[in-house]
Amino acid sequence: MKTAKGTRKAQGPDSAGRTLIPADVLRSFCGRVFRKCGVSEDDARIAADVLVAADLRGIDGHGVARLRGFYVDRLRAGAMSPRPPVQVLSETPLTAVIDGGSGLGHPIAHRAMKLAIDKAGAAGTGFVVVRNSNHFGIAGYYAMMALDSGCIGLCMTSTNPWVVPTFGRDAVLGTNPIAVAVPSGRQRPFVLDMSTSAAPVGKLEVHDRLGSPIPSGWAADERGMPTTAPGEVLRNVRQSVGGGLLPLGGAGEETGGHKGYGLSLWVDIFSVLLSGGSHVDFARHPESAGGRRLGNVCHFFGAWRVETFRPLCEFQAAMDELLQRLKASRKAEGQDRIYVAGEKEFEETDRRRRDGVPLPAPVVADLQSLASEFDVAFSTGALDA
Amino acid sequence: MKTAKGTRKAQGPDSAGRTLIPADVLRSFCGRVFRKCGVSEDDARIAADVLVAADLRGIDGHGVARLRGFYVDRLRAGAMSPRPPVQVLSETPLTAVIDGGSGLGHPIAHRAMKLAIDKAGAAGTGFVVVRNSNHFGIAGYYAMMALDSGCIGLCMTSTNPWVVPTFGRDAVLGTNPIAVAVPSGRQRPFVLDMSTSAAPVGKLEVHDRLGSPIPSGWAADERGMPTTAPGEVLRNVRQSVGGGLLPLGGAGEETGGHKGYGLSLWVDIFSVLLSGGSHVDFARHPESAGGRRLGNVCHFFGAWRVETFRPLCEFQAAMDELLQRLKASRKAEGQDRIYVAGEKEFEETDRRRRDGVPLPAPVVADLQSLASEFDVAFSTGALDA
Repeated sequence: MKTAKGTRKAQGPDSAGRTLIPADVLRSFCGRVFRKCGVSEDDARIAADVLVAADLRGIDGHGVARLRGFYVDRLRAGAMSPRPPVQVLSETPLTAVIDGGSGLGHPIAHRAMKLAIDKAGAAGTGFVVVRNSNHFGIAGYYAMMALDSGCIGLCMTSTNPWVVPTFGRDAVLGTNPIAVAVPSGRQRPFVLDMSTSAAPVGKLEVHDRLGSPIPSGWAADERGMPTTAPGEVLRNVRQSVGGGLLPLGGAGEETGGHKGYGLSLWVDIFSVLLSGGSHVDFARHPESAGGRRLGNVCHFFGAWRVETFRPLCEFQAAMDELLQRLKASRKAEGQDRIYVAGEKEFEETDRRRRDGVPLPAPVVADLQSLASEFDVAFSTGALDA
Repeated sequence: MKTAKGTRKAQGPDSAGRTLIPADVLRSFCGRVFRKCGVSEDDARIAADVLVAADLRGIDGHGVARLRGFYVDRLRAGAMSPRPPVQVLSETPLTAVIDGGSGLGHPIAHRAMKLAIDKAGAAGTGFVVVRNSNHFGIAGYYAMMALDSGCIGLCMTSTNPWVVPTFGRDAVLGTNPIAVAVPSGRQRPFVLDMSTSAAPVGKLEVHDRLGSPIPSGWAADERGMPTTAPGEVLRNVRQSVGGGLLPLGGAGEETGGHKGYGLSLWVDIFSVLLSGGSHVDFARHPESAGGRRLGNVCHFFGAWRVETFRPLCEFQAAMDELLQRLKASRKAEGQDRIYVAGEKEFEETDRRRRDGVPLPAPVVADLQSLASEFDVAFSTGALDA
């Protein structure tokens, strides 16, 4: 097994034929690749940690599978800066506005969220907006950074345009995720990390590969009407023909699609407009060039220190009680468990920390070819040693 | 026409046979009724204004139709205090925690939101949580209070338990609304005011009265399975048999129901847990006693001063551009307009300010009987003179 060569902990394929690779191997590998792209050691470590956190949490579409397409290719093409001139444009004790200098999104986002948490630690709340950044991985990562400081974390980000507004025909909105993390006591923290579309792009890609139809509430065709054909939707959006994902709540207003549309616009306003960023020109989709070119991505980060409102231990006990009460309530027919947001991802993280991250063959092959292109061993590195 | 007796501006019935009553007549009437219930003049004026604002915006289910059931009955029964001992329990330059003293919700919420806006004016952001309050009408009203101060407003509130969590069977969550208001320039402000359920209780009541089925994504039966029978759902929840509204996104996870569930829980955490409030005992529904008894309602209010991030005029121009661009994008087949959150309600307000608020006969009869019970003329009063 070439991928696992030299690693002490890599394990064999799982039942689905995927190779199980230890998280620290992946983290180390990604960090080395980022460094070969000119990223500083600190920034490379952060970007690698965010990527692998997605894999650990089971959000495979946002993990190492994206290393090449979303990040390496853009760094190599010069479309994204490895050592960006990140600038704090303005700052108050509670807020800051940052220009990301078109750098790799993860380290910029990490720095901005840390600043928001530090401000919350000193003043009670902190809010930092970022413009001119790039894709930063999973929003939940940054919201969760608040937890260890006894803060509630909030993270929003603009994304490529994929979502059709209610009664519209063109994808003029992003999947614009909202992430909220809230500390608890003995229970797992509450970690909501949701796109404001009914389904993510990745799920359409999965159905397209399998040749299976999608539920009718997920996407609209080039006339703006609900469709069950994922391949057409993906092509239509990337070629700016029309159609796209539907907002959370589906088509029209009957089942609340206008609410998902409103949430998406809220995220746009908080990330792009408060930071003074600009929108991607949706008349020509950023992915239409074939690659996964990303636009001027903007983020919003917030932190509220719980102690500003009430003693943390009281709050944590109340969280435990609320979450337990919810989970102990009666289940729907055929169901045996009620989950709290983030719970499945925490359990998946435990499993994957123990067993390794399962990667399908094409992803392993892609990482192997990156290893050879960059002359980086695909083995346990020194980053986490 | 008895309802219009003594009024200068009341107009005849509209095409649906509803009586058109000027907003100031309703406002004055509600204010006088609240005062007869022992509410102070200032508080009565605020409560009346919030109620009639709902009617003006076309959110009829939250307007004067609720005057008796939601407010007067509880004030009379002593379950809600007309002159509550509202207390600021703790305060920082940015935050405050308020105990509402079990008073009428509207004046408490108004005071709390004003405090948040004042704090944002001085410090940049302001957040105020309230416990031990009552139903406060439409959340959007308070979010919109931020607009004139160049602030973005946020408002959340807990409500009676009506919503079944994903994979659950019992209504353990409220319809927990989120309202966000953002100032713009020449365009109408963005005003998102949404419950986190797929549909509100009121819509089930309408379908029940008409004897028509509801869409399958709105509600769950007593086994926790999707149902199209609204009457059963209403009875089952009120009798604590099981079932309830589905979260935004519908049943299960396929169309994102777990996201609506997560949003609802977010609202619960921000309003109930940050304020140190307590939850309604969902094992016995608050409405099961026959009346519309409400529980210990908690609210969350936030304000961000735009100038803390960038010049207001720049931000407003960017808002105008974004909203115009969205509205100018192509429409779905059969649609001729894309709306921005709040736009329909602003236009309805213009219409109803001009033509009067259309009230169906049972609501008019109810107001007439309140007029006689309280010996208050149902005519233009002095409140707004």
